[in-house]
Amino acid sequence: MAKNLAHKLIEQHLVSGKMTPGEAVQLKIDQTLCQDATGTMVMLEFEALGLPAVKTEVSAQYVDHNLIQADFKNADDHLFLRSASRKWGLWYSRPGNGISHAVHMSCFGKPGKTLLGSDSHTCAGGSMGMLAMGAGGLQVALAMAGTPFSLTMPEVIGVKVTGKLPPWVSAKDVILEMLRRYDVKGGVNKIFEYYGPGLDNLTAMDRHVIANMGQEMGATASVFPADENLRAFLKQQGREEDFTEMAADDGASYDGEEHIELSELEPLIACPSSPGNVVTVREVAGKPIYQSYIGSSANPGLRDFVIPAKMLEGRTVPEEVSLDINPSSRQLLEEISRNGDLNLMLQAGARLHQTGCNGCIGMGQAPASGRISLRTVPRNFPGRSGTKEDQVYLCSPETATASALFGKITDPRDMDMDYPSFTEPEQLQDMRPLLLAPRDPEKEVPVEIQLEKGPNIQPLPDFGPLPEILSGPILLKTGDNVSTDEILPAGTEILPLRSNIPAISHYTFSRIDESFYDRAMAHNGDCFVIGGENYGQGSSREHAAIAPRYLGVRAVIAVSMARIHRRNLINFGIVPLLFKQPEDLSKLNQQDMLSFSDLPNQLASDKTVSVQTADGKTLELTHNMSEEEVATVIAGGLINEVRKHHLSD
Amino acid sequence: MAKNLAHKLIEQHLVSGKMTPGEAVQLKIDQTLCQDATGTMVMLEFEALGLPAVKTEVSAQYVDHNLIQADFKNADDHLFLRSASRKWGLWYSRPGNGISHAVHMSCFGKPGKTLLGSDSHTCAGGSMGMLAMGAGGLQVALAMAGTPFSLTMPEVIGVKVTGKLPPWVSAKDVILEMLRRYDVKGGVNKIFEYYGPGLDNLTAMDRHVIANMGQEMGATASVFPADENLRAFLKQQGREEDFTEMAADDGASYDGEEHIELSELEPLIACPSSPGNVVTVREVAGKPIYQSYIGSSANPGLRDFVIPAKMLEGRTVPEEVSLDINPSSRQLLEEISRNGDLNLMLQAGARLHQTGCNGCIGMGQAPASGRISLRTVPRNFPGRSGTKEDQVYLCSPETATASALFGKITDPRDMDMDYPSFTEPEQLQDMRPLLLAPRDPEKEVPVEIQLEKGPNIQPLPDFGPLPEILSGPILLKTGDNVSTDEILPAGTEILPLRSNIPAISHYTFSRIDESFYDRAMAHNGDCFVIGGENYGQGSSREHAAIAPRYLGVRAVIAVSMARIHRRNLINFGIVPLLFKQPEDLSKLNQQDMLSFSDLPNQLASDKTVSVQTADGKTLELTHNMSEEEVATVIAGGLINEVRKHHLSD
Repeated sequence: MAKNLAHKLIEQHLVSGKMTPGEAVQLKIDQTLCQDATGTMVMLEFEALGLPAVKTEVSAQYVDHNLIQADFKNADDHLFLRSASRKWGLWYSRPGNGISHAVHMSCFGKPGKTLLGSDSHTCAGGSMGMLAMGAGGLQVALAMAGTPFSLTMPEVIGVKVTGKLPPWVSAKDVILEMLRRYDVKGGVNKIFEYYGPGLDNLTAMDRHVIANMGQEMGATASVFPADENLRAFLKQQGREEDFTEMAADDGASYDGEEHIELSELEPLIACPSSPGNVVTVREVAGKPIYQSYIGSSANPGLRDFVIPAKMLEGRTVPEEVSLDINPSSRQLLEEISRNGDLNLMLQAGARLHQTGCNGCIGMGQAPASGRISLRTVPRNFPGRSGTKEDQVYLCSPETATASALFGKITDPRDMDMDYPSFTEPEQLQDMRPLLLAPRDPEKEVPVEIQLEKGPNIQPLPDFGPLPEILSGPILLKTGDNVSTDEILPAGTEILPLRSNIPAISHYTFSRIDESFYDRAMAHNGDCFVIGGENYGQGSSREHAAIAPRYLGVRAVIAVSMARIHRRNLINFGIVPLLFKQPEDLSKLNQQDMLSFSDLPNQLASDKTVSVQTADGKTLELTHNMSEEEVATVIAGGLINEVRKHHLSD
Repeated sequence: MAKNLAHKLIEQHLVSGKMTPGEAVQLKIDQTLCQDATGTMVMLEFEALGLPAVKTEVSAQYVDHNLIQADFKNADDHLFLRSASRKWGLWYSRPGNGISHAVHMSCFGKPGKTLLGSDSHTCAGGSMGMLAMGAGGLQVALAMAGTPFSLTMPEVIGVKVTGKLPPWVSAKDVILEMLRRYDVKGGVNKIFEYYGPGLDNLTAMDRHVIANMGQEMGATASVFPADENLRAFLKQQGREEDFTEMAADDGASYDGEEHIELSELEPLIACPSSPGNVVTVREVAGKPIYQSYIGSSANPGLRDFVIPAKMLEGRTVPEEVSLDINPSSRQLLEEISRNGDLNLMLQAGARLHQTGCNGCIGMGQAPASGRISLRTVPRNFPGRSGTKEDQVYLCSPETATASALFGKITDPRDMDMDYPSFTEPEQLQDMRPLLLAPRDPEKEVPVEIQLEKGPNIQPLPDFGPLPEILSGPILLKTGDNVSTDEILPAGTEILPLRSNIPAISHYTFSRIDESFYDRAMAHNGDCFVIGGENYGQGSSREHAAIAPRYLGVRAVIAVSMARIHRRNLINFGIVPLLFKQPEDLSKLNQQDMLSFSDLPNQLASDKTVSVQTADGKTLELTHNMSEEEVATVIAGGLINEVRKHHLSD
């Protein structure tokens, strides 16, 4: 039978389970990546597993998030991650090398492989004919330990791409069009597989842009074939030998069909404060802006900087606009410096920032109060920029640049010039010599490497099993589409605390309810959180599960939940429950008391669970956990569960 | 009579007073500069003066300190400063243009002029045949308003420079040698005037390095002649027409003499945690380092980046060392990008940061705990790096680079290569087109420009006059050499509060006594601070006077005081008093009660002041305030005093 590419990739890595949408499947993981904001916890978890080395083909630890170093914490984390990488055989990428997704694509991505990363945008690797997925840190630690990755088998949606992009329209507009159609939860439990003749007109880096923001639709993954365009990319990186052709069989079928005709697209923009609020740039043109931001893992390609440079050549950005250039990798920065494009931007008034995630994760570059910021980043969740009540719009580098030059939101087709041409260089600077390579066991004498743990690096708290008697108040009731940025914010103040759960827990839900931490401390016992639709969308940070658990949250009851966060809840012993009747959401209010009678037994015996409210009513809830997931949540989390059993070898 | 250059500059600008060391002189100010961390307060003060425009030849407002933008505050400040510059006719330099001292030198510095800046390193302008001095913000606001600057006439020390620097020794080693001889207070009430044949071998930018850190000796200013080397610099900046030859007369005499033979110098380094702790690099070589930091206003020249680049060419920095490159200006970044030196550094593993002050003022780049950081910055006061109990060493770019390559403190003469050669380019990119120029009153219709004040920009509190009955506790007793970094720290958390006195006052003395703010709030009344020698050295931040005053501090009694801070105390109504007998310092302890009987009258009538202690003893104190200063401090500060009188026109 003709197979689509997603099915081929899954089948080739299937350890157990059935490839039927909705069933649990276990997959062998070939590669992992971590960034530093999640990686310190992953390394602490890996340490708890007690293995001598990682068992993957490639595991890499990048430092790209915590680059500000307001005090010792970030620097200590970098040294810790380096020592852990040396100890356990990971590649270590020093600060300044760039964003994990861009560097991993340049150095390690390989068609036909699976990649699991403790960053939700790991899915960008789908641009290389890989099955690439974000996951919670503990999941990644277990994958490093050789344990298969457990996943609900998604539907595969075939996205046929035809035609060619018009001038001034680029890959970001393709994924914004998908977001316009699917919004932030239309991709849940789906893999988007792109195919068709239009792909000839999208480079590997264009596909990275599209695959990256597949996450914003809630998709499990996005998959592109490994074709001649990918071969050209690997050749440019000096890795043509890593190329293998990968594609769907002719006539392969899909669980659903979609079509994008590239020539029909126009410049699009996601309005505040959701990546799904997509309109045409024309519809919002003319609004004055404070900031225009180029870069991030959602536009990391050389073209994403060269086209703006050519647009800026000989022009000047008004001095009330901050045009922020954020190089995605050392390789890219070197190339735009070498070819003169960096200077075109500087001479137009741009600010060059250090290579890394920076403002995309709220590490600096916050906009002025009440002003508009245009960004090529993947997300504009409320406050993620660092400014409360921010007004962040997501758009292409072309739209961001045109708007910077005019000082207001501008359709780039209104530039009085021809669309700049761009040709990929044949060769780029190899970054691997600046990464610390894993020790070669045949050449190097094994030595006892000490982990370097600074004073902010604290062990993971112990969490007990799910109790038979469970009651407590609803400590918080949220709205729809609450992101992990709202459950546990990032930013310059909070991100440096990622290795210290007691310290970071102070900020739990602080962006939507400043009193949450104090109320949790005052209550000092079991409690619950109620969510709406798509609870826990966004970043993969497991701290958004660990910190609430640390504060006593035992279950989250929501209308629907985002994939990675749902699994993080399970991993740390919080029960993810859904309303059987979505309208029951309105029956529960903050401060109501809830009681579960023998919840462990209820979970183990049925998909339906009942809960008693204080006024004596009984509500029916459901869960969609597999047997393994139920066992995990009853044990109080995956670490407890793994400790009970042997690790797979 | 043959005159030295410092006397010529002072005489040409003398409004009143006598040029006898120790006497008060009033000088006309031609140019002013502000950076953003002090500038917002300067603009609020200028607003309080109610003038329509600045009255100087050139006033410039730079944005170089608060570049992280963790939230809206920094960005709001930038917009406020831009609106104020437009309103009152200042040049405005946008974020990304670079450090005030470097940019001002490139764009505006002019031999024969006086320059007053609200940044202590304004003295770097002495490299251009100017009399350039740092001052508190209010002093600068008054200079912008055309008021003469009041100063204690300093002694002029002639520093004869002979010979030529050996390979691997550079300008930073010259000023470190001066600091070895004079330590951090040997320059108080002195101008260092450099002259002699050795100056032929020091470029204008080399002299900037030396003049900049004259501040670290407590000097009022450093002065260099305007000679052919300065002409070459101005020509390179496209401003040869701004050159005027300026030099001491033949046979000019000085109040003191010093001699530097350049050929006898070797690589030097200031050990933690004072710029005066200077030893040879050889004495501390071999200590492992975490960080090496190139840049800041204390090494802003092109050569300071090109020499490291050539040293790094084809080599790799170990990945446990953070080699941080901090471009001083847009012009410099463009040049090292154009000539390929940036890529030599990047390929060696360096991290490139945004153009600005950055880690020098504790805005990021803090070192790991317990690790050594080598920096080309001017200061290593305790904790200024952002890491408490830091170990910061100050050294030349050559020493910093060699140490980065070897991973340990290394004398650059141990590099296995010839000393790289460097030739200044004939021409550099003119930065002025990217500055907002003052409105041209002949061309532009005057419009009412609104100041853009974000919610963090709060008016200066009102302070009452000095009361006749004054008693209260000694709320804090400090040691010697307390810097303004310890009185009111900078860094990522605190610097963004510079426009908000109630908010920033929480951090008063927090680095040396975390309970100070709480104790001040609990006491809620008049109180005193006791200091040792050289109280208030370092940065010119007037917040180190305003915040203590806001918390009730009415007098500081010390053994000796740094010039700029002493004046800032007066400007905000805190009486600066000195022990008549330094040994009396030991008689006063924290929490002791002190009472002054009619202090205003005592100050006005005599240089001696008496104070009663709780146990009935009387101690004799002195003050060295001029009549004008006494009137100011009695009025409760300069704003009150200025409001009483007319502004000079």
